[in-house]
Amino acid sequence: MKKRSLGAKPLIYPQPVLLIATFDNKGKANVMNAAWGGIASSDPLCVSVGVRPSRHTHDAIISRNAFTVNIPSQRMVQEADFVGMVSGRNLDKFVEAGFTPITSDVVDAPYISQCPVVLECALLKTVNLEAHTLMIGEILDAKVDEDCLMDGDVPDIHKIAPLVFDSGSRRYFSIGQKVADAFSVGMSRHK
Amino acid sequence: MKKRSLGAKPLIYPQPVLLIATFDNKGKANVMNAAWGGIASSDPLCVSVGVRPSRHTHDAIISRNAFTVNIPSQRMVQEADFVGMVSGRNLDKFVEAGFTPITSDVVDAPYISQCPVVLECALLKTVNLEAHTLMIGEILDAKVDEDCLMDGDVPDIHKIAPLVFDSGSRRYFSIGQKVADAFSVGMSRHK
Repeated sequence: MKKRSLGAKPLIYPQPVLLIATFDNKGKANVMNAAWGGIASSDPLCVSVGVRPSRHTHDAIISRNAFTVNIPSQRMVQEADFVGMVSGRNLDKFVEAGFTPITSDVVDAPYISQCPVVLECALLKTVNLEAHTLMIGEILDAKVDEDCLMDGDVPDIHKIAPLVFDSGSRRYFSIGQKVADAFSVGMSRHK
Repeated sequence: MKKRSLGAKPLIYPQPVLLIATFDNKGKANVMNAAWGGIASSDPLCVSVGVRPSRHTHDAIISRNAFTVNIPSQRMVQEADFVGMVSGRNLDKFVEAGFTPITSDVVDAPYISQCPVVLECALLKTVNLEAHTLMIGEILDAKVDEDCLMDGDVPDIHKIAPLVFDSGSRRYFSIGQKVADAFSVGMSRHK
């Protein structure tokens, strides 16, 4: 199949919808929407999230050395999209979005009660990448809604129902059907 | 809903399946499977990918200052899973997986002809995170199969059919239905 060259485009598939929650230097809870992040290392277990220096969240993370990563369910798509379009500098986004902030018991940041999965992170390192600062946070705890867990504390992706962000078309999608078991389906290619 | 504390777990949803392709110091094309990566900054436009120092790909990226990020389609799930389970040190994974390496015209790395989306990246920075090195690469070009493009050069996520990796259950999923338009559905919450 012939490929077309599109120039520099951020075409990673799938991209997540991450709600990053912080306390600012006045102690006000705030939240932003980030698609640009993921797991960065297994030990220490870290996430990385790109945050523009102009964002209110940027200085909040640095002043508190902490943030939470909250995974919204697809039923929260309106609220998740909303918090990505306004600044928390002059607005209480938790109130406007109808989110309930719960103060983390392990880091100096709030998490969003309504999100089925939350990761509580201590800031480990920042990497200056000009337009964005990469915030690298160590995951100290993951909390998951009890009704989203299968046997053995394994989260059920269809009950969590996370959003997929498609940055190419600027649309949100849901998770589809199971395709295969990982670390398993490829075994048949072993000679 | 009551949350259960699961300790430090890499519960980002969704996670991608990224095939990282390189030339090693002998010029041999190699590929690994990485779920831990994403976009890191918009300017310079960068990706970050966590790679263990023990991986053959690790030194290949550093010796060539380049790598490609290839998005496999779900029809390639067996091959994508396979290249995540074996090392390219003593095996030609391109041959074993049936992948065709195409030498990039912009960076010193191959890409996978069969993957519908490829990002050609120049290594910009490395960040030591102990178990993994975060490889930060500037995206110099994105190439997409012509039959996966909609009008106006926008890639069609359902034609690309990327895999979703669920690290909690160790399963691959497909992309589901459209949920909403981004930067739009949240507007109704504006007062």
